[in-house]
Parts: sequence; structure tokens; C-alpha cells
Amino acid sequence: MAPSISLDPIGHVRGGRTEPIDDEWDSVDAMIELDEKRFGPEVVAGLDEFSHLDVVFFFDQVTESDVNLGARRPRGNPEWPEVGIFAQRAKARPNRIGVSTCTLLGVDGLSLSVRGLDAIDGTPVLDIKPHVPEMGPRGEVREPAWMRELMRDYW
Amino acid sequence: MAPSISLDPIGHVRGGRTEPIDDEWDSVDAMIELDEKRFGPEVVAGLDEFSHLDVVFFFDQVTESDVNLGARRPRGNPEWPEVGIFAQRAKARPNRIGVSTCTLLGVDGLSLSVRGLDAIDGTPVLDIKPHVPEMGPRGEVREPAWMRELMRDYW
Repeated sequence: MAPSISLDPIGHVRGGRTEPIDDEWDSVDAMIELDEKRFGPEVVAGLDEFSHLDVVFFFDQVTESDVNLGARRPRGNPEWPEVGIFAQRAKARPNRIGVSTCTLLGVDGLSLSVRGLDAIDGTPVLDIKPHVPEMGPRGEVREPAWMRELMRDYW
Repeated sequence: MAPSISLDPIGHVRGGRTEPIDDEWDSVDAMIELDEKRFGPEVVAGLDEFSHLDVVFFFDQVTESDVNLGARRPRGNPEWPEVGIFAQRAKARPNRIGVSTCTLLGVDGLSLSVRGLDAIDGTPVLDIKPHVPEMGPRGEVREPAWMRELMRDYW
């Protein structure tokens, strides 16, 4: 078996929601506070030229025993099909990693002001990348109807 | 200081490139082989309804000493500005996490056939998510000219 990978959070989400509510995340403003013991402000030099961030974070409120490897209906909705955890973006997933695109409102030293980050107060942040449209999908994109329905009120 | 987070790869990239060449990744087909000791095929049930994946992986060929926390010119290009590591998507970054969107060609048990995954043979995979267009940026997207230039030949 391959060795485990050990990561240290680069910072934490501060403010915003304190409970993981499913929907309407674009109404939430929060901060990402980068670890000032490890980083100087040069790590975010030029970041304000980007309108959006891709944030990689760790769902630390999910326990390993929460992670269900069986197929299930997303949000328990009986009208949706049973799908596997890697065909969903649910948080109770192996390695408990979230990836989300949010609006960057401003940069002040190592404090990033963001809107629409679907991670709650205290969430450990593993990486921040500038959102680059060219990194998106090439070719026509296809997704099932249940996912479109699920996303209707998400932001 | 917050405790470290320990992750186990869910699988590995097999095939494709053996060297991290900068550009033309859409010409590369590869497999993602999920760990059959941990997972059954139900973890990918319904995944074939999606045309693209968002793959989270670990740049295991980058050493911690490769990670440069100073601002620098991407790809050493003298015409581009000095920017911080969190304003770039370069691989030599804290926690060495890559996130990339690729085409899903097919699913066979725990083997996923993909195109345009910018990760080399042997790369540990940390997560797979279906690519969901609604998860993309809300509002107008802005990026600096150097990034658009860098991405010109990327795929």
C-alpha cells in the first residue's frame, strides 16, 4: 500500500456560516486567513488580478465513519438515482476534500475576503489557486438531470 | 499549530506521460486506477453520466524543498510579472495539490479512462468528482494577460 500523504493546512476559513446548510451559498461572505507563521504576503502577490479563486479545503467536521462507500440517492431524494460517492460532490467522501470556486472580493496581506465559498467557519484550507477559465472542460459537457436539479438553489 | 491531515490516495494515474511536459495535455490519454482493496465498483455508479471529471491529485515528484514561497515569474518568462505561488497554478506549491478537469472516456469497473489529465504516470489521486458546470464561477471572470498567454498551448 502506498504511504499516507501528510498535509498541513495553509490557513482557515474565518466567519461565514457555522453550520453546513445545503443551499444559497452566494449570500455568504467570509475570510480565508493564511497561516502567517509560514507565509509572507508575497505568496499572494498578483492574486488580486483574478476575480475568482479555486479553493481546496478539508471537510474536518465529517468523520471517517460518516463516509459511506455504497451507492446512495443524493440528499436522500427518492426521485434521484442511487449513485456512487465519486459520482457526487457530497462532503462525506474518501479523503474529505472539497474544491470550490468563489469570488475574490479583496486581498489584505494574508487575509482574503471571499463570497460564495461553501465551507464553514474554521474549515482548514489546503490550497488556493487562481480561477483560470481555460482550465475548464474542453468539448461539450454532459451531466445528469438530477445534478442540475440539485444545483438549482445551491448558490 | 493545527494538526497535520493524513490522506491515503484513492488510486493512481496509469499510463500517459512519464515526464511533466508543460503543454499539449489534451493529446494524452491515461487511466485512473482506483484502489480495489478499498473500493467496489459501486463507488463510481452513475459516473458515466458525466462527460468530464474534476481530479484532485498529489504532485509526488515535487519535493518539499522545490516549493518556493517567493514571488516569481511563471515559467521564468521575463515578460511576465513576478507573482506569488497562490496566484499561479504551478506544481511546486505548498501541499503540492493539483486540481484538473479532464474528459471521461469510459468507466470499466474501477478503471477510468481519461483524456487531457495533466498528471503523469504513477501520480497519486486524492479525489475524483464529477464535473458540474454549475459549480463554476458566478459573475464575470477576470484574469491577467500573462495567464491567458500561458494557457495558449496548454491543452
